[in-house]
Order: sequence, then C-alpha cells, then structure tokens
Amino acid sequence: MVAHTVTSFDEELAAIDRIIRDMGHFSAAMVQAATVALLEGEQDMARRVIADDAVMDARQRELDERAITLIGKRQPMADDLRTVVGAIRIASDLERIGDLAKNLGKRVAAVDKSPASQTFAHSIESMAELVQHQLERVVDIYIERDAEALVPLRADDEKIDVQYTAVFRELLTYMMEDPRNITACTHLLFCAKNLERIGDHVTNIAENAYYVMTGSQLPANRPKVDETGTQPSLA
Amino acid sequence: MVAHTVTSFDEELAAIDRIIRDMGHFSAAMVQAATVALLEGEQDMARRVIADDAVMDARQRELDERAITLIGKRQPMADDLRTVVGAIRIASDLERIGDLAKNLGKRVAAVDKSPASQTFAHSIESMAELVQHQLERVVDIYIERDAEALVPLRADDEKIDVQYTAVFRELLTYMMEDPRNITACTHLLFCAKNLERIGDHVTNIAENAYYVMTGSQLPANRPKVDETGTQPSLA
Repeated sequence: MVAHTVTSFDEELAAIDRIIRDMGHFSAAMVQAATVALLEGEQDMARRVIADDAVMDARQRELDERAITLIGKRQPMADDLRTVVGAIRIASDLERIGDLAKNLGKRVAAVDKSPASQTFAHSIESMAELVQHQLERVVDIYIERDAEALVPLRADDEKIDVQYTAVFRELLTYMMEDPRNITACTHLLFCAKNLERIGDHVTNIAENAYYVMTGSQLPANRPKVDETGTQPSLA
Repeated sequence: MVAHTVTSFDEELAAIDRIIRDMGHFSAAMVQAATVALLEGEQDMARRVIADDAVMDARQRELDERAITLIGKRQPMADDLRTVVGAIRIASDLERIGDLAKNLGKRVAAVDKSPASQTFAHSIESMAELVQHQLERVVDIYIERDAEALVPLRADDEKIDVQYTAVFRELLTYMMEDPRNITACTHLLFCAKNLERIGDHVTNIAENAYYVMTGSQLPANRPKVDETGTQPSLA
C-alpha cells in the first residue's frame, strides 16, 4: 500500500471496512437464527430474521454512497481504486446473503412442527453451521488482510457442495417414502439450496477480498457445479 | 438532463447504455433457449446456454470498468452520477439473470426425455414466456428513458408470482400422485423458482431505471412475497 498524504482517505476506507465487518457478522447471525427457527419451528424468531434484512439493505446503501463519494472526490488510482470497488462488490454479496437468510426465515411457516418435519429439518443443520462459520471467517480474514488464509477457505466451499448433494438425496428419499412428506421436504430443499447459494457468495467474497489484497486472482479456481442438476441418475 | 460541455461524457454514457441493451437481449435469448432445451430435452442447446453465461460476465466487467473509470475521471454530480451508478446496478441484475438462465440450462440433464417429464416441463412454459417478455421490455424502456412505462411493467411482476404459485402447486400434485415423478418435478420446481427470481431482477431493474430517469422511487412499491413459503396449508 502506498502511504497517503491525506490521512482521511485511509479513515474513510476504515469506515467502509467497519461496515463490511458489521454486515458480515450481522448476516451470519441471521443465518444462525433462521436455522434455529427452522429446527424448532420458532415463528417469532423467523419474523425477526425477515425484518432484519432491512438493516442489511440500509448498510449496503450507506457503504455504496460512501464508496461512490470517495471515488468521485479522491479519484483513487490502482490499489486504492481496487480496494473501494472491491468493498462495493463484497457489500453486494453480503446484501444477497441477507436476502437468502430472509428467504430461509420465510420457509419456517411452511415447515410444520410435526415430529417428522422436525426430523427432516435436522438434515440441513450441519450444512447451515458450516456456511455460517465460513461467512464469519471470510469477513474476519478480509478485515485482517490475510490473503493466504483465503486459499484454504475457498477450498472449503467444496465441503458445502458435498453436504448439499447429501441433503438433497436425503430429502428426496423422505419424499419417496411417503407423499405426506413432500410439502415440508420441498421447502427444506429450497432451504438447502439457499444455504448452498450463501456458500457461493462466501466464495465470491473470498475472490474479491484476494483481489483487493493482491491484485491477482485467487489461485486454483475450481469449476462450480451443482451436482444435483447434472446427475440424471439421482432417482 | 444538463447539457455537457464535454460531449465525450455523453458518448461514454451511450456506450454504457449499449452494453446494457446487449446484455438484456442476450440474457432474454438465454432464458428462451434454456426453456426450449427443458421442454424438448435438448442437451446441446442447454450446454450452449451454460457456456453463454461467460459472455454476460465479460460484458458486466467491461461495463463496470467503463463506469468506474468515468466516475474517477469526470467526477459527475447529481443526475450524471445517478445514471452511472444506476447502470452499474442494472448490469449487476442482468449478470445475475445470466447466472439463473445458466442454472436453468444445468437442470436439463436432470429432467429426462420421458413423456411424463416432458408433460411436467410444460407447466413452466407460459411463466418462462412472460419472464422473457418482461426482461426484453424493461431493457427497451430503459434505453428509451420512458419512465411512465415502468409503472405498469412493475405491476406485471405480480402475474409472474401468481403463475409461480400455480406451477408450484401443479408440480407438487404430480409428485404426490407417483413417487417416480419426484426427481423430475423437484428439478422443475427449482427451474420455476429460478424464473420467479429472474422476474424479481426485472423488478429491480425497473426500480433502478425509474430512479435513474426521475431521481424518485417507483411509486406503489408492493411488498414482495413468495406465497409458497408462507402458506403452510399447501399440502
């Protein structure tokens, strides 16, 4: 990083970083609350998650305005411009994660509190925990500017995809066993897909964070596949 | 619009507009091809749609770079800054639409060519046509800067949601009738959800386009609900 003669540029960047950190931890808490609400059929908790999405939207708008003002006012070059544009992109992924957590919350009403449905809901539990952990990690790594830590983190997205494929098969099995399971399991399939998509946004954040820190692309970009969509032999 | 002493600002804006128009028509063609591929089990066509997503990504990066350079170089104020930032947001929605069309293409392999699966696939046909029409419309309206035309267009998003709810119920019925239908119908449920999400991105584009043209929010912002997620009585 080049030292700035005008320190307030760095101060403004630090303010932007703080918004990203807050959005990251807030969205991870939304994912956690939505998961608990799904597992325990907690409608009130689900409603709070749905309402919390407005906080994420407001923070993103605030970051966008600060970043655009900063670009217009300071005309940053190279490294600094990359950092500001990277922050806009990271905030956009975090805002989408907030949307997806809200969608998880909306599904709670459709998954009833019957013992069977609660059993099915547990199929997504460990996937949700992993996604939430990855989300907190990527934001902390970004704030610490620890580029090397992003390489193993991105590789862990594969674990989420493996879990998603397993959950997909498990839920399909419940549906085939008894048609009465179909509605709850269909909604849980959408929940699992939402969690997998949150994992994809975490990967996007890792890639943008690496680019901000190094100016290069994150190495070993693996091709992204949703295996459930390309295996006609699933049934 | 304020007249610019430096005409190249307008020329650069016009170049950005052309990228948006191209991305809009290209993504609508992707949605159409993916739908035909689903209805007719056309694997080759599906593969082309999947590959086409890279074109959308490249165009978005090109637009982002032009827009950021323009902001840094010209420091536009008020109306002009709003237009450039609006274009970045519209391109981001179009890029997401390309991703969703790619996801539709990926599902083709999972929906077999049996007569039953082809029947199920037709449940999404009219929804796909409406989504594609809306997408072409919103981009044309943006290019023409016809703010008033955006009001009825946004209202039409409700039609997509109504169709989505009907498709969801229809597919669930097929699944309950015969467990052998579950795999194909599950993949088609994800396709229907992707189409509904494309409709949401069209609404985002309409809102951003209106803001670019008028500086105000598009009136009568209706609350967005996915009814399938909030009606536990569906089964």
